[in-house]
Amino acid sequence: MSEKHYENDIVISTRVRIARNIKGFCFPSKLTHQEALNINHIVIDALTKDESLGFRYLSMEGLTDLKRQALVEQHIISPDLGKNTLGGVIISRTGDVSVMINEEDHIRIQAIKPGFGLKETYIEADKIDDLLQSSADCAYSEKYGFITSCLTNLGTGLRAGVMLHLPALVLNSKLGVISAMASKYALAVRGIYGEGSLVLGDLFQISNQTSLGQTEEQLVENLHAVCREIIKKERAERDLLMIHKEDEIKDKVMRAYAILTHAHMISAEEALKLLSLLRMGADMHLIDEVPSEILNRLMINIQPATLALKNASVSNDKSLELYRAKYIKQELENK
Amino acid sequence: MSEKHYENDIVISTRVRIARNIKGFCFPSKLTHQEALNINHIVIDALTKDESLGFRYLSMEGLTDLKRQALVEQHIISPDLGKNTLGGVIISRTGDVSVMINEEDHIRIQAIKPGFGLKETYIEADKIDDLLQSSADCAYSEKYGFITSCLTNLGTGLRAGVMLHLPALVLNSKLGVISAMASKYALAVRGIYGEGSLVLGDLFQISNQTSLGQTEEQLVENLHAVCREIIKKERAERDLLMIHKEDEIKDKVMRAYAILTHAHMISAEEALKLLSLLRMGADMHLIDEVPSEILNRLMINIQPATLALKNASVSNDKSLELYRAKYIKQELENK
Repeated sequence: MSEKHYENDIVISTRVRIARNIKGFCFPSKLTHQEALNINHIVIDALTKDESLGFRYLSMEGLTDLKRQALVEQHIISPDLGKNTLGGVIISRTGDVSVMINEEDHIRIQAIKPGFGLKETYIEADKIDDLLQSSADCAYSEKYGFITSCLTNLGTGLRAGVMLHLPALVLNSKLGVISAMASKYALAVRGIYGEGSLVLGDLFQISNQTSLGQTEEQLVENLHAVCREIIKKERAERDLLMIHKEDEIKDKVMRAYAILTHAHMISAEEALKLLSLLRMGADMHLIDEVPSEILNRLMINIQPATLALKNASVSNDKSLELYRAKYIKQELENK
Repeated sequence: MSEKHYENDIVISTRVRIARNIKGFCFPSKLTHQEALNINHIVIDALTKDESLGFRYLSMEGLTDLKRQALVEQHIISPDLGKNTLGGVIISRTGDVSVMINEEDHIRIQAIKPGFGLKETYIEADKIDDLLQSSADCAYSEKYGFITSCLTNLGTGLRAGVMLHLPALVLNSKLGVISAMASKYALAVRGIYGEGSLVLGDLFQISNQTSLGQTEEQLVENLHAVCREIIKKERAERDLLMIHKEDEIKDKVMRAYAILTHAHMISAEEALKLLSLLRMGADMHLIDEVPSEILNRLMINIQPATLALKNASVSNDKSLELYRAKYIKQELENK
């Protein structure tokens, strides 16, 4: 399994999540307040031992709605944890490793890295798992593997996901091909906000749906191979666009850039759509390069709660739209 | 009747047209080919006597479809004349005075000037009328005045029109007020392409509907007074927009500018709509000034036939859209 950096224009990020539960406790939905606190302590003690990781703990109860929503937008916590006052999260200094406590399982370790890097990201999450298991006793069955609250996580407790940017497949109405391929290999395709939500910015997460009966390596290898196929298909659709519709696509890209750098106010939804076109245009050399770090950062930072936390004077939707336009302009002009 | 130059941001141009017919001939719809040629000769002889005017004659028969269409777009000839192979037009060096021959009437003198200047424009057209009548015998009745093919032109044969830019009245859905006011004073309101056409670029021509029973001075004074009222109403609507919707309007204007300076291809219809917003934004100081000469020129020059005549390599609608985007960008960037 070799990770190729030339794929990083289409692969936004790689995420690996490991679910664990502490032996002798019910699953979070059945915990008493005291038991939930006990689990909190066990996990915090286990993970903050190693100070070099720079982990800090945030309890959901201690956060404002806005801060919880921002953590959801940044993919650090799930929407479910955001609603759960008994839950909490441990976050590394850089935010690329986090551990949710008392979400659906007692423990959900998550590592996220930019670009296509399933192996590195898995190693990162696995390290935290080792650290956890060195002092906490996790529920495990010889027959099934790690015990989890939902059957789809039973076994390795592993879910690996790759966030892909597929604008040409969307423009050419070829997403059906991707869904069919994913379901054939027992993979799920989800939009940027996860299950059942609108797909914004042509971003799709491909992840394994089950975790039982395969080793971690097999799961990751399967996902990797399918993602490479999807990347090839996206590239083929981009080539077709260049052959048949170069001017029309260049026009779309130029207009997206124009609006992103000139609008006086803009919604998150429109901005994500335009950033998606800009990313594709830059990848296809239809416009001067815009570093993908800037685009990745913008795609997260322009979301409502994350953006509102950057500017205390933002008081309503309209002032947020005004501030968003200004922020995007600045980021793109200083590139 | 004093003409105020501060009104020139809302008034695009002033046009005066005088209809005349040569005594002893049927109206053009009933003319034989030979009679039409005779009228051509009479008018050409009368008007090209004075070489200082630099008049040149173009017969409709000798022009390509594209050239005829371009003259229509430039408001030098009417769509009807463009279709009439027996017709012709005499044009002054600058194009601001023209005389259509064998359109609805034998002779239609037209003077057009940028900005709000009914008096000057009337004087310009009247000079040509004097020149014509000094050697051609025009049909005139003591009772009705000048005889014309259509009853609405009977009397003075005069039609005066003012082209107004009314984007705020359009945005605030207040055009009904204008139509009501116009019809009360027997004036007509027409979109940029004349009768029955789509209104593009928020441009409206206000002109007198009848010509009988009033002197030229009364007709022009009446039109002038009503236009001043309309200009006041447009200003009032702009003030309301600034009070209630400043950010939304600024956003529209900034996006219009962005697309006009960045699009890779653009239709005439979209470009006119965006130029209209840009003109309003510049007038309202929401964006850096764009000289109104440039905007006036663009509004004419981006129209299909006029634009196609500028570039011989334009071969179809798509190449015209590509060239239009390039042309607009250049004009706005060199301002």
